[in-house]
Amino acid sequence: MKDKFYQYIEDLQNTITATLEKVDGKAKFKEDIWERPEGGGGRTRVISGGNVFEKGGVNISGVHGPLPETMQKYFGVKEADFFACGLSLVLHPKNPMVPTVHANWRYFEMYDKSGNIVNSWFGGGQDLTPYYLFDEDAKHFHQICNRACDKHNLEFYPKYKKQCDTYFWNAHRNEARGIGGLFFDRCSENTEMNMQNWYNFVTEVGNSFLEAYVPIVERRKDLHYTKEQRDWQEIRRGRYVEFNLIHDKGTLFGLKTNGRIESILMSLPPHVQWHYNHTPEAGSEEERLLEILKNPKDWV
Amino acid sequence: MKDKFYQYIEDLQNTITATLEKVDGKAKFKEDIWERPEGGGGRTRVISGGNVFEKGGVNISGVHGPLPETMQKYFGVKEADFFACGLSLVLHPKNPMVPTVHANWRYFEMYDKSGNIVNSWFGGGQDLTPYYLFDEDAKHFHQICNRACDKHNLEFYPKYKKQCDTYFWNAHRNEARGIGGLFFDRCSENTEMNMQNWYNFVTEVGNSFLEAYVPIVERRKDLHYTKEQRDWQEIRRGRYVEFNLIHDKGTLFGLKTNGRIESILMSLPPHVQWHYNHTPEAGSEEERLLEILKNPKDWV
Repeated sequence: MKDKFYQYIEDLQNTITATLEKVDGKAKFKEDIWERPEGGGGRTRVISGGNVFEKGGVNISGVHGPLPETMQKYFGVKEADFFACGLSLVLHPKNPMVPTVHANWRYFEMYDKSGNIVNSWFGGGQDLTPYYLFDEDAKHFHQICNRACDKHNLEFYPKYKKQCDTYFWNAHRNEARGIGGLFFDRCSENTEMNMQNWYNFVTEVGNSFLEAYVPIVERRKDLHYTKEQRDWQEIRRGRYVEFNLIHDKGTLFGLKTNGRIESILMSLPPHVQWHYNHTPEAGSEEERLLEILKNPKDWV
Repeated sequence: MKDKFYQYIEDLQNTITATLEKVDGKAKFKEDIWERPEGGGGRTRVISGGNVFEKGGVNISGVHGPLPETMQKYFGVKEADFFACGLSLVLHPKNPMVPTVHANWRYFEMYDKSGNIVNSWFGGGQDLTPYYLFDEDAKHFHQICNRACDKHNLEFYPKYKKQCDTYFWNAHRNEARGIGGLFFDRCSENTEMNMQNWYNFVTEVGNSFLEAYVPIVERRKDLHYTKEQRDWQEIRRGRYVEFNLIHDKGTLFGLKTNGRIESILMSLPPHVQWHYNHTPEAGSEEERLLEILKNPKDWV
Protein backbone atom coordinates (compact mmCIF):
# COMPACT_ATOMS: atom_id res chain seq x y z
CA MET A 1 0.00 0.00 0.00
CA LYS A 2 2.75 2.48 0.84
CA ASP A 3 4.45 2.03 -2.52
CA LYS A 4 1.15 2.21 -4.38
CA PHE A 5 0.11 5.41 -2.61
CA TYR A 6 3.53 7.02 -3.06
CA GLN A 7 3.31 6.26 -6.79
CA TYR A 8 -0.14 7.85 -6.79
CA ILE A 9 1.01 11.11 -5.17
CA GLU A 10 4.00 11.29 -7.50
CA ASP A 11 1.68 11.09 -10.50
CA LEU A 12 -0.81 13.49 -8.95
CA GLN A 13 1.93 16.05 -8.27
CA ASN A 14 2.88 15.87 -11.96
CA THR A 15 -0.72 16.33 -13.10
CA ILE A 16 -1.45 19.19 -10.73
CA THR A 17 1.73 21.16 -11.40
CA ALA A 18 1.38 20.77 -15.17
CA THR A 19 -2.22 22.01 -15.07
CA LEU A 20 -1.45 24.94 -12.74
CA GLU A 21 1.39 26.09 -15.01
CA LYS A 22 -1.07 26.19 -17.92
CA VAL A 23 -3.56 28.17 -15.82
CA ASP A 24 -0.86 30.61 -14.75
CA GLY A 25 0.53 31.09 -18.24
CA LYS A 26 3.79 32.62 -17.00
CA ALA A 27 5.50 31.09 -13.97
CA LYS A 28 6.90 27.55 -13.84
CA PHE A 29 7.33 25.32 -10.81
CA LYS A 30 10.88 25.01 -9.51
CA GLU A 31 11.78 21.60 -8.14
CA ASP A 32 13.92 20.76 -5.09
CA ILE A 33 14.69 17.17 -4.16
CA TRP A 34 15.63 16.83 -0.50
CA GLU A 35 16.64 14.05 1.88
CA ARG A 36 15.78 13.65 5.54
CA PRO A 37 18.82 12.61 7.60
CA GLU A 38 16.77 10.11 9.65
CA GLY A 39 15.23 8.49 6.55
CA GLY A 40 13.24 9.47 3.48
CA GLY A 41 12.88 12.82 1.76
CA GLY A 42 10.72 14.65 -0.69
CA ARG A 43 10.16 16.49 -3.94
CA THR A 44 9.21 20.11 -3.36
CA ARG A 45 7.78 22.13 -6.25
CA VAL A 46 7.24 25.83 -5.74
CA ILE A 47 5.88 28.55 -7.98
CA SER A 48 6.18 32.30 -7.49
CA GLY A 49 5.69 35.59 -9.26
CA GLY A 50 3.17 34.19 -11.71
CA ASN A 51 0.33 35.89 -13.58
CA VAL A 52 -2.07 34.13 -11.25
CA PHE A 53 -0.08 32.51 -8.47
CA GLU A 54 1.95 34.88 -6.33
CA LYS A 55 3.34 31.97 -4.33
CA GLY A 56 2.56 28.33 -3.94
CA GLY A 57 3.88 24.86 -3.48
CA VAL A 58 2.82 21.36 -4.46
CA ASN A 59 5.04 19.06 -2.42
CA ILE A 60 5.34 15.36 -1.86
CA SER A 61 7.36 13.62 0.79
CA GLY A 62 7.88 10.17 2.24
CA VAL A 63 9.62 9.95 5.59
CA HIS A 64 10.38 6.99 7.84
CA GLY A 65 12.44 5.81 10.79
CA PRO A 66 11.98 5.79 14.56
CA LEU A 67 8.96 7.81 15.69
CA PRO A 68 10.31 10.96 17.39
CA GLU A 69 9.57 11.22 21.11
CA THR A 70 7.26 14.22 20.76
CA MET A 71 5.19 12.25 18.24
CA GLN A 72 5.08 9.19 20.51
CA LYS A 73 3.35 11.37 23.10
CA TYR A 74 1.03 12.79 20.45
CA PHE A 75 -0.04 9.33 19.27
CA GLY A 76 -0.03 7.87 22.80
CA VAL A 77 2.43 5.10 21.93
CA LYS A 78 5.87 3.97 23.07
CA GLU A 79 8.91 3.48 20.86
CA ALA A 80 7.89 2.57 17.30
CA ASP A 81 8.99 2.91 13.70
CA PHE A 82 6.85 4.81 11.26
CA PHE A 83 6.38 5.63 7.60
CA ALA A 84 4.45 8.69 6.44
CA CYS A 85 3.94 10.06 2.97
CA GLY A 86 1.69 12.64 1.46
CA LEU A 87 1.08 15.43 -1.00
CA SER A 88 0.56 18.92 0.43
CA LEU A 89 -0.34 21.95 -1.59
CA VAL A 90 -1.05 25.58 -0.86
CA LEU A 91 -1.64 28.22 -3.54
CA HIS A 92 -1.69 31.95 -2.80
CA PRO A 93 -3.08 33.80 -5.82
CA LYS A 94 -2.14 37.43 -6.48
CA ASN A 95 -5.67 38.65 -7.16
CA PRO A 96 -7.73 38.95 -3.94
CA MET A 97 -10.81 37.78 -5.86
CA VAL A 98 -9.20 34.34 -6.28
CA PRO A 99 -9.29 32.22 -3.12
CA THR A 100 -6.30 30.53 -1.56
CA VAL A 101 -6.56 26.75 -1.59
CA HIS A 102 -5.00 24.04 0.52
CA ALA A 103 -5.08 20.29 0.03
CA ASN A 104 -3.34 17.31 1.54
CA TRP A 105 -3.60 13.54 1.07
CA ARG A 106 -1.50 11.33 3.29
CA TYR A 107 -0.85 7.77 4.40
CA PHE A 108 0.72 6.58 7.64
CA GLU A 109 2.07 3.23 8.86
CA MET A 110 3.36 2.30 12.31
CA TYR A 111 5.45 -0.82 12.96
CA ASP A 112 6.31 -3.11 15.86
CA LYS A 113 9.91 -4.13 16.59
CA SER A 114 9.76 -6.95 14.02
CA GLY A 115 8.66 -4.52 11.33
CA ASN A 116 5.04 -5.68 11.17
CA ILE A 117 2.42 -3.01 10.50
CA VAL A 118 0.52 -2.48 13.76
CA ASN A 119 -1.55 0.40 12.50
CA SER A 120 -2.10 2.28 9.26
CA TRP A 121 -4.39 5.06 8.15
CA PHE A 122 -5.17 7.61 5.49
CA GLY A 123 -5.95 11.25 6.04
CA GLY A 124 -6.40 14.42 4.07
CA GLY A 125 -8.81 16.87 2.59
CA GLN A 126 -9.07 20.12 0.68
CA ASP A 127 -10.34 23.53 1.73
CA LEU A 128 -10.84 27.00 0.33
CA THR A 129 -9.92 30.39 1.84
CA PRO A 130 -11.55 33.27 -0.03
CA TYR A 131 -10.81 36.95 0.62
CA TYR A 132 -13.94 38.05 -1.23
CA LEU A 133 -16.73 35.55 -1.13
CA PHE A 134 -18.58 34.57 -4.29
CA ASP A 135 -21.31 32.18 -3.13
CA GLU A 136 -21.20 30.50 -6.52
CA ASP A 137 -17.55 29.55 -5.94
CA ALA A 138 -18.19 28.19 -2.45
CA LYS A 139 -21.06 26.08 -3.78
CA HIS A 140 -19.02 24.76 -6.68
CA PHE A 141 -16.11 23.74 -4.45
CA HIS A 142 -18.36 21.99 -1.96
CA GLN A 143 -20.42 20.29 -4.68
CA ILE A 144 -17.29 18.69 -6.13
CA CYS A 145 -16.27 17.57 -2.63
CA ASN A 146 -19.77 16.20 -2.07
CA ARG A 147 -19.78 14.25 -5.32
CA ALA A 148 -16.39 12.63 -4.62
CA CYS A 149 -17.60 11.56 -1.18
CA ASP A 150 -21.00 10.27 -2.27
CA LYS A 151 -19.40 7.71 -4.61
CA HIS A 152 -18.03 5.97 -1.50
CA ASN A 153 -20.37 6.65 1.39
CA LEU A 154 -23.30 9.06 1.71
CA GLU A 155 -22.29 9.89 5.25
CA PHE A 156 -18.79 11.05 4.32
CA TYR A 157 -19.55 14.51 2.95
CA PRO A 158 -21.58 15.82 5.91
CA LYS A 159 -19.14 14.22 8.34
CA TYR A 160 -15.92 15.42 6.72
CA LYS A 161 -17.34 18.84 5.88
CA LYS A 162 -18.10 19.35 9.55
CA GLN A 163 -14.69 18.04 10.59
CA CYS A 164 -13.13 20.54 8.20
CA ASP A 165 -14.97 23.45 9.82
CA THR A 166 -13.86 22.16 13.22
CA TYR A 167 -10.24 21.55 12.29
CA PHE A 168 -9.54 24.82 10.47
CA TRP A 169 -10.87 26.85 13.36
CA ASN A 170 -8.74 29.79 14.49
CA ALA A 171 -9.80 29.36 18.11
CA HIS A 172 -8.02 32.50 19.37
CA ARG A 173 -9.97 34.54 16.79
CA ASN A 174 -13.18 32.59 17.13
CA GLU A 175 -13.51 32.22 13.37
CA ALA A 176 -12.83 29.68 10.64
CA ARG A 177 -9.73 30.01 8.47
CA GLY A 178 -11.87 29.78 5.34
CA ILE A 179 -15.10 28.33 4.02
CA GLY A 180 -13.95 24.75 4.45
CA GLY A 181 -14.29 21.67 2.28
CA LEU A 182 -13.25 18.24 3.52
CA PHE A 183 -11.05 17.01 6.36
CA PHE A 184 -10.58 13.38 7.38
CA ASP A 185 -7.97 11.61 9.48
CA ARG A 186 -7.18 8.19 10.97
CA CYS A 187 -9.13 6.42 8.23
CA SER A 188 -8.34 2.81 9.20
CA GLU A 189 -9.82 -0.57 8.36
CA ASN A 190 -13.30 -1.02 9.85
CA THR A 191 -16.39 -3.14 9.18
CA GLU A 192 -17.37 -1.02 6.16
CA MET A 193 -14.04 0.00 4.65
CA ASN A 194 -10.84 -1.96 4.15
CA MET A 195 -7.58 -0.16 3.28
CA GLN A 196 -8.19 -0.61 -0.46
CA ASN A 197 -11.61 1.05 -0.04
CA TRP A 198 -9.94 3.94 1.78
CA TYR A 199 -7.31 4.19 -0.96
CA ASN A 200 -10.12 4.43 -3.51
CA PHE A 201 -11.84 7.16 -1.51
CA VAL A 202 -8.73 9.24 -0.84
CA THR A 203 -7.57 9.09 -4.45
CA GLU A 204 -11.10 10.02 -5.57
CA VAL A 205 -10.79 13.21 -3.53
CA GLY A 206 -7.27 13.81 -4.83
CA ASN A 207 -8.48 13.40 -8.39
CA SER A 208 -11.31 15.88 -7.79
CA PHE A 209 -9.00 18.71 -6.70
CA LEU A 210 -8.39 20.37 -10.05
CA GLU A 211 -12.08 20.25 -10.96
CA ALA A 212 -12.93 21.79 -7.58
CA TYR A 213 -10.45 24.67 -7.81
CA VAL A 214 -9.45 25.52 -11.37
CA PRO A 215 -12.89 26.72 -12.63
CA ILE A 216 -12.95 29.20 -9.72
CA VAL A 217 -9.51 30.51 -10.64
CA GLU A 218 -10.52 30.89 -14.29
CA ARG A 219 -13.63 32.87 -13.35
CA ARG A 220 -11.87 35.32 -10.98
CA LYS A 221 -8.27 35.70 -12.06
CA ASP A 222 -8.82 38.70 -14.35
CA LEU A 223 -11.26 40.63 -12.16
CA HIS A 224 -10.29 44.18 -11.30
CA TYR A 225 -9.28 44.93 -7.73
CA THR A 226 -8.26 48.02 -5.73
CA LYS A 227 -5.33 48.66 -3.41
CA GLU A 228 -7.75 48.49 -0.47
CA GLN A 229 -8.94 45.05 -1.57
CA ARG A 230 -5.35 43.88 -1.88
CA ASP A 231 -4.67 45.20 1.66
CA TRP A 232 -7.64 43.22 2.93
CA GLN A 233 -6.26 40.09 1.29
CA GLU A 234 -2.87 40.63 2.99
CA ILE A 235 -4.54 41.21 6.36
CA ARG A 236 -6.58 38.03 5.98
CA ARG A 237 -3.42 36.19 4.97
CA GLY A 238 -2.22 37.11 8.46
CA ARG A 239 -4.96 34.90 9.87
CA TYR A 240 -3.74 32.13 7.58
CA VAL A 241 -0.26 32.47 9.10
CA GLU A 242 -1.72 32.47 12.62
CA PHE A 243 -3.63 29.26 11.97
CA ASN A 244 -0.68 27.47 10.42
CA LEU A 245 1.82 28.42 13.12
CA ILE A 246 -0.43 28.18 16.19
CA HIS A 247 -2.94 25.42 15.42
CA ASP A 248 -2.04 23.32 12.39
CA LYS A 249 -1.10 19.76 13.28
CA GLY A 250 0.45 19.21 9.83
CA THR A 251 2.92 22.03 10.37
CA LEU A 252 3.59 20.76 13.89
CA PHE A 253 4.16 17.22 12.60
CA GLY A 254 6.66 18.54 10.08
CA LEU A 255 8.55 20.60 12.66
CA LYS A 256 8.62 17.77 15.21
CA THR A 257 9.77 15.08 12.78
CA ASN A 258 12.66 17.25 11.57
CA GLY A 259 11.04 17.77 8.18
CA ARG A 260 12.48 20.26 5.71
CA ILE A 261 11.60 23.69 7.08
CA GLU A 262 11.41 25.48 3.73
CA SER A 263 9.06 22.79 2.38
CA ILE A 264 6.83 22.95 5.46
CA LEU A 265 6.69 26.74 5.59
CA MET A 266 6.11 27.15 1.86
CA SER A 267 2.47 27.37 3.02
CA LEU A 268 3.07 30.90 4.34
CA PRO A 269 1.86 33.72 2.08
CA PRO A 270 4.35 36.00 0.29
CA HIS A 271 3.09 39.40 1.52
CA VAL A 272 1.20 39.72 4.78
CA GLN A 273 -0.02 42.57 6.97
CA TRP A 274 -0.99 42.92 10.61
CA HIS A 275 -2.75 46.04 11.81
CA TYR A 276 -3.94 46.66 15.31
CA ASN A 277 -7.66 46.02 15.70
CA HIS A 278 -8.55 46.16 12.02
CA THR A 279 -12.34 46.15 11.59
CA PRO A 280 -14.17 46.19 8.24
CA GLU A 281 -16.86 48.78 7.52
CA ALA A 282 -20.43 47.92 8.49
CA GLY A 283 -22.34 46.44 5.57
CA SER A 284 -19.20 45.83 3.48
CA GLU A 285 -18.23 42.68 1.57
CA GLU A 286 -15.37 42.27 4.03
CA GLU A 287 -17.77 42.25 6.96
CA ARG A 288 -20.01 39.70 5.21
CA LEU A 289 -17.03 37.36 4.84
CA LEU A 290 -16.24 37.64 8.56
CA GLU A 291 -19.84 36.84 9.47
CA ILE A 292 -19.69 33.61 7.47
CA LEU A 293 -16.29 32.68 8.90
CA LYS A 294 -17.71 33.06 12.39
CA ASN A 295 -20.76 30.93 11.52
CA PRO A 296 -19.78 28.28 8.97
CA LYS A 297 -22.71 27.46 6.67
CA ASP A 298 -23.80 24.62 4.44
CA TRP A 299 -23.04 25.19 0.79
CA VAL A 300 -24.61 22.12 -0.79
CA MET B 1 3.86 44.17 46.23
CA LYS B 2 1.30 43.68 43.50
CA ASP B 3 -0.14 47.17 43.92
CA LYS B 4 3.31 48.72 44.10
CA PHE B 5 4.49 46.97 40.93
CA TYR B 6 1.28 47.81 39.06
CA GLN B 7 1.76 51.45 39.99
CA TYR B 8 5.33 51.19 38.71
CA ILE B 9 4.33 49.80 35.29
CA GLU B 10 1.58 52.41 34.96
CA ASP B 11 4.14 55.17 35.49
CA LEU B 12 6.69 53.48 33.25
CA GLN B 13 4.14 53.15 30.45
CA ASN B 14 3.52 56.90 30.69
CA THR B 15 7.23 57.72 30.60
CA ILE B 16 8.00 55.40 27.71
CA THR B 17 5.08 56.41 25.50
CA ALA B 18 5.73 60.13 26.08
CA THR B 19 9.40 59.74 25.15
CA LEU B 20 8.71 57.60 22.08
CA GLU B 21 6.19 60.16 20.79
CA LYS B 22 8.90 62.81 21.02
CA VAL B 23 11.36 60.58 19.18
CA ASP B 24 8.81 59.84 16.48
CA GLY B 25 7.78 63.46 16.00
CA LYS B 26 4.58 62.58 14.16
CA ALA B 27 2.48 59.65 15.40
CA LYS B 28 0.76 59.54 18.79
CA PHE B 29 -0.12 56.48 20.84
CA LYS B 30 -3.78 55.50 20.80
CA GLU B 31 -5.13 54.09 24.05
CA ASP B 32 -7.59 51.22 24.56
CA ILE B 33 -8.77 50.25 28.02
CA TRP B 34 -10.05 46.66 28.13
CA GLU B 35 -11.49 44.30 30.69
CA ARG B 36 -11.00 40.57 31.02
CA PRO B 37 -14.30 38.76 31.69
CA GLU B 38 -12.66 36.45 34.25
CA GLY B 39 -11.02 39.33 36.13
CA GLY B 40 -8.70 42.24 35.48
CA GLY B 41 -7.88 44.03 32.26
CA GLY B 42 -5.36 46.35 30.73
CA ARG B 43 -4.35 49.60 29.10
CA THR B 44 -3.13 49.05 25.54
CA ARG B 45 -1.26 51.87 23.79
CA VAL B 46 -0.43 51.44 20.13
CA ILE B 47 1.36 53.64 17.64
CA SER B 48 1.35 53.31 13.87
CA GLY B 49 2.29 55.14 10.71
CA GLY B 50 4.88 57.31 12.43
CA ASN B 51 8.01 58.96 11.06
CA VAL B 52 10.04 56.37 12.93
CA PHE B 53 7.66 53.73 14.26
CA GLU B 54 5.68 51.86 11.63
CA LYS B 55 3.86 49.89 14.30
CA GLY B 56 4.27 49.30 17.98
CA GLY B 57 2.60 48.84 21.30
CA VAL B 58 3.44 49.62 24.92
CA ASN B 59 0.84 47.71 26.92
CA ILE B 60 0.15 47.05 30.56
CA SER B 61 -2.24 44.53 32.00
CA GLY B 62 -3.20 43.02 35.32
CA VAL B 63 -5.25 39.82 35.23
CA HIS B 64 -6.47 37.56 38.01
CA GLY B 65 -8.89 34.78 38.88
CA PRO B 66 -8.77 30.98 38.78
CA LEU B 67 -5.68 29.67 36.98
CA PRO B 68 -6.89 28.20 33.64
CA GLU B 69 -6.47 24.44 33.30
CA THR B 70 -3.88 24.68 30.54
CA MET B 71 -1.78 26.93 32.78
CA GLN B 72 -2.17 24.55 35.73
CA LYS B 73 -0.50 21.89 33.62
CA TYR B 74 2.17 24.35 32.53
CA PHE B 75 3.05 25.31 36.12
CA GLY B 76 2.60 21.74 37.40
CA VAL B 77 -0.02 22.75 39.99
CA LYS B 78 -3.65 21.89 40.74
CA GLU B 79 -6.51 24.38 41.06
CA ALA B 80 -5.26 27.76 42.21
CA ASP B 81 -5.99 31.46 41.93
CA PHE B 82 -3.46 33.76 40.34
CA PHE B 83 -2.60 37.38 39.73
CA ALA B 84 -0.31 38.47 36.91
CA CYS B 85 0.63 41.93 35.72
CA GLY B 86 3.22 43.34 33.42
CA LEU B 87 4.30 45.81 30.82
CA SER B 88 5.01 44.46 27.34
CA LEU B 89 6.36 46.49 24.49
CA VAL B 90 7.34 45.83 20.91
CA LEU B 91 8.39 48.52 18.44
CA HIS B 92 8.71 47.92 14.71
CA PRO B 93 10.52 50.86 13.11
CA LYS B 94 9.98 51.70 9.44
CA ASN B 95 13.65 52.13 8.57
CA PRO B 96 15.45 48.75 8.30
CA MET B 97 18.55 50.35 9.82
CA VAL B 98 16.69 50.78 13.13
CA PRO B 99 16.32 47.56 15.12
CA THR B 100 13.05 46.21 16.47
CA VAL B 101 12.96 46.11 20.25
CA HIS B 102 10.98 44.03 22.72
CA ALA B 103 10.76 44.39 26.48
CA ASN B 104 8.64 42.94 29.23
CA TRP B 105 8.59 43.25 33.02
CA ARG B 106 6.11 41.16 34.93
CA TYR B 107 5.03 39.99 38.37
CA PHE B 108 3.07 36.87 39.27
CA GLU B 109 1.33 35.65 42.45
CA MET B 110 -0.34 32.31 43.09
CA TYR B 111 -2.76 31.74 45.99
CA ASP B 112 -4.08 28.86 48.05
CA LYS B 113 -7.81 28.42 48.72
CA SER B 114 -7.69 30.85 51.64
CA GLY B 115 -6.13 33.54 49.46
CA ASN B 116 -2.63 33.32 50.94
CA ILE B 117 0.28 33.82 48.55
CA VAL B 118 1.91 30.43 48.04
CA ASN B 119 4.36 31.59 45.42
CA SER B 120 5.34 34.84 43.74
CA TRP B 121 7.97 35.83 41.24
CA PHE B 122 9.21 38.51 38.87
CA GLY B 123 10.27 38.03 35.28
CA GLY B 124 11.18 40.05 32.25
CA GLY B 125 13.94 41.39 30.09
CA GLN B 126 14.66 43.38 26.97
CA ASP B 127 16.13 42.34 23.66
CA LEU B 128 17.06 43.81 20.31
CA THR B 129 16.34 42.50 16.79
CA PRO B 130 18.39 44.31 14.13
CA TYR B 131 17.92 43.85 10.39
CA TYR B 132 21.29 45.46 9.64
CA LEU B 133 23.83 45.02 12.36
CA PHE B 134 25.85 47.97 13.64
CA ASP B 135 28.24 46.49 16.21
CA GLU B 136 28.27 49.82 18.00
CA ASP B 137 24.50 49.53 18.62
CA ALA B 138 24.69 45.96 19.88
CA LYS B 139 27.49 46.95 22.28
CA HIS B 140 25.58 49.98 23.53
CA PHE B 141 22.41 47.97 24.21
CA HIS B 142 24.26 45.24 26.05
CA GLN B 143 26.38 47.71 28.03
CA ILE B 144 23.26 49.38 29.42
CA CYS B 145 21.85 45.94 30.28
CA ASN B 146 25.13 45.01 31.92
CA ARG B 147 25.25 48.18 34.01
CA ALA B 148 21.69 47.73 35.29
CA CYS B 149 22.49 44.15 36.31
CA ASP B 150 25.84 44.91 37.94
CA LYS B 151 24.23 47.27 40.44
CA HIS B 152 22.44 44.25 41.93
CA ASN B 153 24.57 41.18 41.34
CA LEU B 154 27.67 40.69 39.19
CA GLU B 155 26.44 37.27 38.12
CA PHE B 156 23.15 38.56 36.69
CA TYR B 157 24.34 39.97 33.38
CA PRO B 158 26.22 36.89 32.12
CA LYS B 159 23.43 34.63 33.41
CA TYR B 160 20.49 36.57 31.99
CA LYS B 161 22.29 37.42 28.75
CA LYS B 162 22.77 33.70 28.16
CA GLN B 163 19.17 32.93 29.13
CA CYS B 164 18.05 35.54 26.60
CA ASP B 165 20.01 33.87 23.79
CA THR B 166 18.51 30.54 24.83
CA TYR B 167 14.93 31.76 25.17
CA PHE B 168 14.70 33.76 21.93
CA TRP B 169 15.95 30.83 19.89
CA ASN B 170 14.02 30.00 16.75
CA ALA B 171 14.71 26.28 17.12
CA HIS B 172 13.12 25.29 13.79
CA ARG B 173 15.45 27.77 12.03
CA ASN B 174 18.45 27.07 14.23
CA GLU B 175 19.05 30.76 14.78
CA ALA B 176 18.39 33.47 17.38
CA ARG B 177 15.53 35.91 16.86
CA GLY B 178 17.90 38.82 17.40
CA ILE B 179 21.10 39.80 19.19
CA GLY B 180 19.59 39.35 22.65
CA GLY B 181 19.83 41.36 25.82
CA LEU B 182 18.38 40.12 29.10
CA PHE B 183 15.85 37.45 30.00
CA PHE B 184 14.95 36.35 33.53
CA ASP B 185 12.00 34.44 34.96
CA ARG B 186 10.76 32.91 38.22
CA CYS B 187 12.78 35.38 40.28
CA SER B 188 11.58 34.36 43.77
CA GLU B 189 12.81 34.93 47.28
CA ASN B 190 16.10 33.13 47.97
CA THR B 191 19.02 33.43 50.38
CA GLU B 192 20.44 36.42 48.49
CA MET B 193 17.39 38.28 47.24
CA ASN B 194 14.07 38.98 48.94
CA MET B 195 11.09 40.21 46.91
CA GLN B 196 11.98 43.86 47.56
CA ASN B 197 15.49 43.20 46.18
CA TRP B 198 13.94 41.65 43.09
CA TYR B 199 11.60 44.61 42.74
CA ASN B 200 14.63 46.90 42.86
CA PHE B 201 16.40 44.86 40.21
CA VAL B 202 13.44 44.54 37.83
CA THR B 203 12.59 48.24 38.04
CA GLU B 204 16.29 49.07 37.48
CA VAL B 205 16.10 47.17 34.19
CA GLY B 206 12.76 48.80 33.34
CA ASN B 207 14.24 52.22 34.00
CA SER B 208 17.21 51.45 31.75
CA PHE B 209 15.09 50.68 28.69
CA LEU B 210 14.93 54.14 27.13
CA GLU B 211 18.65 54.68 27.60
CA ALA B 212 19.34 51.30 26.00
CA TYR B 213 17.18 51.86 22.93
CA VAL B 214 16.59 55.54 22.14
CA PRO B 215 20.19 56.51 21.31
CA ILE B 216 20.24 53.70 18.72
CA VAL B 217 17.03 54.98 17.15
CA GLU B 218 18.39 58.53 17.01
CA ARG B 219 21.57 57.37 15.28
CA ARG B 220 19.85 55.27 12.60
CA LYS B 221 16.39 56.68 11.92
CA ASP B 222 17.42 58.99 9.09
CA LEU B 223 19.82 56.66 7.29
CA HIS B 224 19.10 56.03 3.63
CA TYR B 225 17.85 52.58 2.64
CA THR B 226 16.95 50.80 -0.59
CA LYS B 227 13.89 48.76 -1.57
CA GLU B 228 16.02 45.62 -1.33
CA GLN B 229 16.98 46.48 2.25
CA ARG B 230 13.35 47.07 3.11
CA ASP B 231 12.48 43.66 1.58
CA TRP B 232 15.15 42.06 3.75
CA GLN B 233 13.61 43.71 6.83
CA GLU B 234 10.17 42.33 5.91
CA ILE B 235 11.59 38.85 5.36
CA ARG B 236 13.35 38.93 8.73
CA ARG B 237 10.14 40.16 10.32
CA GLY B 238 8.72 36.83 9.14
CA ARG B 239 11.12 35.10 11.52
CA TYR B 240 9.86 37.40 14.27
CA VAL B 241 6.31 36.19 13.57
CA GLU B 242 7.45 32.58 13.54
CA PHE B 243 9.10 32.93 16.94
CA ASN B 244 6.15 34.69 18.54
CA LEU B 245 3.52 32.26 17.25
CA ILE B 246 5.46 28.99 17.55
CA HIS B 247 7.77 29.43 20.54
CA ASP B 248 6.95 32.46 22.69
CA LYS B 249 5.62 31.54 26.11
CA GLY B 250 4.34 35.09 26.67
CA THR B 251 2.09 34.86 23.61
CA LEU B 252 1.00 31.39 24.68
CA PHE B 253 0.23 32.61 28.20
CA GLY B 254 -1.92 35.39 26.76
CA LEU B 255 -3.84 33.06 24.45
CA LYS B 256 -4.38 30.43 27.16
CA THR B 257 -5.55 32.87 29.83
CA ASN B 258 -8.10 34.40 27.47
CA GLY B 259 -6.18 37.66 27.23
CA ARG B 260 -7.17 40.31 24.75
CA ILE B 261 -6.08 38.98 21.34
CA GLU B 262 -5.44 42.36 19.73
CA SER B 263 -3.24 43.40 22.66
CA ILE B 264 -1.29 40.16 22.58
CA LEU B 265 -0.79 40.13 18.82
CA MET B 266 0.14 43.81 18.61
CA SER B 267 3.67 42.33 18.66
CA LEU B 268 3.28 41.19 15.04
CA PRO B 269 4.93 43.43 12.43
CA PRO B 270 2.82 45.51 10.02
CA HIS B 271 4.27 44.29 6.69
CA VAL B 272 5.90 40.88 6.40
CA GLN B 273 7.19 38.69 3.60
CA TRP B 274 7.85 34.99 3.18
CA HIS B 275 9.78 33.74 0.17
CA TYR B 276 10.71 30.17 -0.50
CA ASN B 277 14.31 29.42 0.46
CA HIS B 278 15.52 33.02 0.55
CA THR B 279 19.31 33.11 0.89
CA PRO B 280 21.44 36.28 1.15
CA GLU B 281 24.40 36.84 -1.14
CA ALA B 282 27.77 35.54 -0.02
CA GLY B 283 29.79 38.21 1.73
CA SER B 284 26.80 40.55 2.16
CA GLU B 285 25.72 42.44 5.29
CA GLU B 286 22.62 40.25 5.35
CA GLU B 287 24.74 37.11 5.46
CA ARG B 288 26.89 38.56 8.26
CA LEU B 289 23.75 39.12 10.34
CA LEU B 290 22.66 35.50 9.85
CA GLU B 291 26.09 34.24 10.92
CA ILE B 292 25.82 36.14 14.19
CA LEU B 293 22.24 34.99 14.77
CA LYS B 294 23.38 31.41 14.37
CA ASN B 295 26.30 31.92 16.77
CA PRO B 296 25.30 34.45 19.45
CA LYS B 297 28.32 36.44 20.60
CA ASP B 298 29.37 38.46 23.62
CA TRP B 299 28.96 42.19 23.16
CA VAL B 300 30.38 43.50 26.41
